[in-house]
Amino acid sequence: MNFASDNWAGATAPVMAALARHSAGFASAYGTDPLTAALEKRFCEIFEREVSVFFVATGSAANSLALSAFARPGGAIFCHEDAHIRVDECGCPEFLTSGNKLVGVAGVNGKMTPEALSQSMADFPDGVVHHGQVAAVSITQATEVGTLYSLDEIAAIKAVAESRGVPLHMDGARFANALASLGATPAEMTWKAGVDALSFGATKNGCWCAEVIVFFDPEQAKGFEYFRKRAGHLFSKSRFVAAQLEGYLENDNWLTTAAHANEQAKRLAQGVEQRGGRLLSPVQANEVFPIIGKVQAAKLRQGGAMFHEWPVQASHPNAPVEGDVAIRLVTSFATSPEEVSQFLDLL
Amino acid sequence: MNFASDNWAGATAPVMAALARHSAGFASAYGTDPLTAALEKRFCEIFEREVSVFFVATGSAANSLALSAFARPGGAIFCHEDAHIRVDECGCPEFLTSGNKLVGVAGVNGKMTPEALSQSMADFPDGVVHHGQVAAVSITQATEVGTLYSLDEIAAIKAVAESRGVPLHMDGARFANALASLGATPAEMTWKAGVDALSFGATKNGCWCAEVIVFFDPEQAKGFEYFRKRAGHLFSKSRFVAAQLEGYLENDNWLTTAAHANEQAKRLAQGVEQRGGRLLSPVQANEVFPIIGKVQAAKLRQGGAMFHEWPVQASHPNAPVEGDVAIRLVTSFATSPEEVSQFLDLL
Amino acid sequence: MNFASDNWAGATAPVMAALARHSAGFASAYGTDPLTAALEKRFCEIFEREVSVFFVATGSAANSLALSAFARPGGAIFCHEDAHIRVDECGCPEFLTSGNKLVGVAGVNGKMTPEALSQSMADFPDGVVHHGQVAAVSITQATEVGTLYSLDEIAAIKAVAESRGVPLHMDGARFANALASLGATPAEMTWKAGVDALSFGATKNGCWCAEVIVFFDPEQAKGFEYFRKRAGHLFSKSRFVAAQLEGYLENDNWLTTAAHANEQAKRLAQGVEQRGGRLLSPVQANEVFPIIGKVQAAKLRQGGAMFHEWPVQASHPNAPVEGDVAIRLVTSFATSPEEVSQFLDLL
Amino acid sequence: MNFASDNWAGATAPVMAALARHSAGFASAYGTDPLTAALEKRFCEIFEREVSVFFVATGSAANSLALSAFARPGGAIFCHEDAHIRVDECGCPEFLTSGNKLVGVAGVNGKMTPEALSQSMADFPDGVVHHGQVAAVSITQATEVGTLYSLDEIAAIKAVAESRGVPLHMDGARFANALASLGATPAEMTWKAGVDALSFGATKNGCWCAEVIVFFDPEQAKGFEYFRKRAGHLFSKSRFVAAQLEGYLENDNWLTTAAHANEQAKRLAQGVEQRGGRLLSPVQANEVFPIIGKVQAAKLRQGGAMFHEWPVQASHPNAPVEGDVAIRLVTSFATSPEEVSQFLDLL
Repeated sequence: MNFASDNWAGATAPVMAALARHSAGFASAYGTDPLTAALEKRFCEIFEREVSVFFVATGSAANSLALSAFARPGGAIFCHEDAHIRVDECGCPEFLTSGNKLVGVAGVNGKMTPEALSQSMADFPDGVVHHGQVAAVSITQATEVGTLYSLDEIAAIKAVAESRGVPLHMDGARFANALASLGATPAEMTWKAGVDALSFGATKNGCWCAEVIVFFDPEQAKGFEYFRKRAGHLFSKSRFVAAQLEGYLENDNWLTTAAHANEQAKRLAQGVEQRGGRLLSPVQANEVFPIIGKVQAAKLRQGGAMFHEWPVQASHPNAPVEGDVAIRLVTSFATSPEEVSQFLDLL
Repeated sequence: MNFASDNWAGATAPVMAALARHSAGFASAYGTDPLTAALEKRFCEIFEREVSVFFVATGSAANSLALSAFARPGGAIFCHEDAHIRVDECGCPEFLTSGNKLVGVAGVNGKMTPEALSQSMADFPDGVVHHGQVAAVSITQATEVGTLYSLDEIAAIKAVAESRGVPLHMDGARFANALASLGATPAEMTWKAGVDALSFGATKNGCWCAEVIVFFDPEQAKGFEYFRKRAGHLFSKSRFVAAQLEGYLENDNWLTTAAHANEQAKRLAQGVEQRGGRLLSPVQANEVFPIIGKVQAAKLRQGGAMFHEWPVQASHPNAPVEGDVAIRLVTSFATSPEEVSQFLDLL
Repeated sequence: MNFASDNWAGATAPVMAALARHSAGFASAYGTDPLTAALEKRFCEIFEREVSVFFVATGSAANSLALSAFARPGGAIFCHEDAHIRVDECGCPEFLTSGNKLVGVAGVNGKMTPEALSQSMADFPDGVVHHGQVAAVSITQATEVGTLYSLDEIAAIKAVAESRGVPLHMDGARFANALASLGATPAEMTWKAGVDALSFGATKNGCWCAEVIVFFDPEQAKGFEYFRKRAGHLFSKSRFVAAQLEGYLENDNWLTTAAHANEQAKRLAQGVEQRGGRLLSPVQANEVFPIIGKVQAAKLRQGGAMFHEWPVQASHPNAPVEGDVAIRLVTSFATSPEEVSQFLDLL
Repeated sequence: MNFASDNWAGATAPVMAALARHSAGFASAYGTDPLTAALEKRFCEIFEREVSVFFVATGSAANSLALSAFARPGGAIFCHEDAHIRVDECGCPEFLTSGNKLVGVAGVNGKMTPEALSQSMADFPDGVVHHGQVAAVSITQATEVGTLYSLDEIAAIKAVAESRGVPLHMDGARFANALASLGATPAEMTWKAGVDALSFGATKNGCWCAEVIVFFDPEQAKGFEYFRKRAGHLFSKSRFVAAQLEGYLENDNWLTTAAHANEQAKRLAQGVEQRGGRLLSPVQANEVFPIIGKVQAAKLRQGGAMFHEWPVQASHPNAPVEGDVAIRLVTSFATSPEEVSQFLDLL
């Protein structure tokens, strides 16, 4: 019963098969090989337009490099106050942007509202050098607490970004889970709603190590290869990422595994609620945040369940009461229905 | 007949087998898994002492991050003028060190002499703030032109570094080839000769993507995990690097493949010389630099041989004469003896 | 009636006289001249111990460079949420520290409490690489809202910093005003209370451009000259800063002008309160923040008074009510008692 | 007899007078005061077009900040191998450009030839990410060895820069000396010859601390205020720089003092040659590099002359022979004709 994180899983069979398929023979290095080119084309099909894609090693790199291309001197990048890029990256975005600020915006269920974003941006009026300048906005889809921005909500965030002349980035570490849950097309959930650059995460959903930075306007991507290389993120054997993505994308594997993970999360959520438990936030992707008794949490662990506690600010409307704790359950392609049943039985 | 580069090859069978072996099941993320721990222990055995190891995605990252830990404000890092870190990394070392200089030192056969290094360092006298300060020395083993520092030569470079109080880094992108050729132990070729930090490259010699930063004094490695994470180079599914290294190191696979590549390089070199050709520099690892007629180079290409031209400064003692060109032939685990014979027949 | 800011004033007569006195003749450059040496000695006397001092051009540089010496990869620097270094420096500390975060800690009257600091630091537990690491603490004395940390309060902040093994920096842009108000010695208000590095500001209190970074432990200052030079902050004609400081410090001019400014601020505060007005925060140095009607503010401006509005968060206990506004009045050596009387008459 | 450096002098009488004139009264801070505005206008007149000007504290800052605005990820900035920005700035340009390389180009008399520049740039072909990308070209006028680029030579350098699509920067630490010597107008020596940005140095020629970054195309200067502030180089009491410049520029003081310094340098050069001595390079501004016997150098020092030795590479066509040494004599507004005569008598 491992619900610790979706990055505790390994690689899916199709991903491994594709890697094996492409492991022999020679291919030119540094992204100039035919397989990388084929996958670049595949991304254009998936997003229904010409896009510029860049493979990198980690989600940290995908997010931070995308933002580095949007950075400005004294720049401020706006994101939810709990955003991974702000809290969990050891200052990688700050470092790769040569010191841009990650400004946290409050909001329920892990989502910024356009109003809060707009207000936060007002602290950086145009032309007032002391405060620095607005540089970009970043949203996470699915969010850090397993919720989703609707297409309209994305568009509304975009409108605020646009009003200040800055681009919109989407951290899609769990992009497939969001897509499967919303039932939207990749195009609808990104550029059609105003996203300029996407960190397309494939690692959590079944690859070993395959993250892709997608620019929807190739103009904005000009020179981006220098940002990537300068930070040490250009793979020599690029085809090993391309191969993973081939296995990941073929036959809609990515959507199937994401839907599976989402389904198991929904079962967990329903099981918790049926047993009278409550959730920190609605379950819309592959993460569930039950609030349970500390004693119960200990029992679950003794019974073999693995998960992390989740820190909740006292001011949160659903904050755990004395004696309770919020826990995080993450499902993935590797989560078996039996594990879920076993967990709910234990509960 | 592909001699373009050793990073045009894929992954060896043992590496793929190990990846497949570890692809299922859960393992904790970010380098805390048992397989990563096992490999860390393996490196201690290989180097016959306690070492601190850090897996990263690329050789660019391994070199630049190691140097970032040694950087100083206004720092100067000394390396051969043709060193990969100085010429081929798009300024990655400069960026990750927040602007340290990569100072090129001249020297025949891709190697710095202690005298030239010492003289170059003299441009940065202690306490003269205008010139900046010495920060580190880096050598490449095997070098960019396929030659080797002997153990004594490494120790002599170290003595100069030590005289100025700075550490010695080794770029071991082709570490196994050097080891196999010198017949030294990993310990002898590194810390016993004075190396403080090593970029242990495994990608070119048969992995997909497995580079390891090794610190021989764990004290010097303190806090290094923050340098790695800050640049986006901490893998979540760390075991996928560990698995590659397991396959790479088991049964001395790494030394076998390196010895194979070296052997093919030697055959190429001998074949060239037997045919009256000359070489830019001695062949001591898996790279051969014949100087041939441009017409002949074109014919080889028409015959199906793949290789790069190699730029040589006019002042080089072995520089090609009018009508000639230096070419680079790189062998790897994937180079078949037949390809070599075929190439020599064409010549 | 100019209360816009203390940096709207020019230079005091003694400062100008000292500049004139030292304007002729030759002196060695880059801080090696006898006058600079004399002033360095003077700082040791003032602080009653051996200190290392570094002249720089601006307060932004003084603060940011001092912090750059304390920075760590992925580092977090803690300060009040309204601290100048966090809000008004266009990301200069972030840039010069290669991306350290400026973490804002809440607290009334512009001061962090030890508890709030400790809690904020808890978000960065030792050894958890994702969150980064604690790097330093910075307090402003006098604070951005004209209040003071008592000696005990400084020591309490230091205790928290020490519990996490990080140094304490003091932004002393208005150091003299704080000193004159507290009646403490420079030693008591700094190293005796635990301050490791001080930005000693002299510009606002009567110099043209004279800011000094003071390290109380010369060990911590080792190599700091490289941080300063690397950022372009080493003056060639260093004596022009030294001369200003000579005039500033001789005959206790600095304390006299600070006491004068404080006295005028106190008169303003008393005048406001006598007229039934209220203040945003207690007046302990040379800044006064009356809360007045917007209509009244407009009238004051028409009458010739110059000042800035001061933004106050709605959650502030003393936040202006509908129709009111907080204004900031800053006094300096150049504020005449007549101006103050005139302002109060207008009120 | 002080010929150590022009930055050993203090401030001229007109500069001090202007400072005194503007030391009283209030003026808005951070460059928004009327005096700063007046000087900005003065620069437009001097350069016969609309220019954008930014005051900073040091020449290091002027050069490095100008280049930071032109920097690119993995960027290479080309300058003479002896250029101050490459050799004497403690890596300030590298730091403020987030790691751009300073690529040294060889050339006699401190000047790059267009051919050498072009060849050096060829190491960075467009689109080859490994080598990085060309970012800017910088020339020093007068050069580090006291020579001058003619207007045609500047235009020829510009043509090479333009052929690669990068801007041309001029380090004008001794701009006035160059101007006075060439007899050109400021416009002719800058934008009319193709200069995009100029570091206009006034400190060495009689100010305390007044350096100005001039952009000839205001479009290129857009957002530059954020670069300056981010590095801590925005003065609060900006008028103190403006006042210095007022005194510096009024009545052509700057050209008069520069012409005086140049004249004294010429007398030194002629005196040396008349006495059979030889010079390292032609004297075209305010620096003279005689090659004299070591014994003679010691005698001059005993006689009270102050100067620095000048390191010369053995490969230099005019390198000192055994027993000789090159010395550098710098004149300034503060150099008296008597000192020159006295020095020549001693010789």
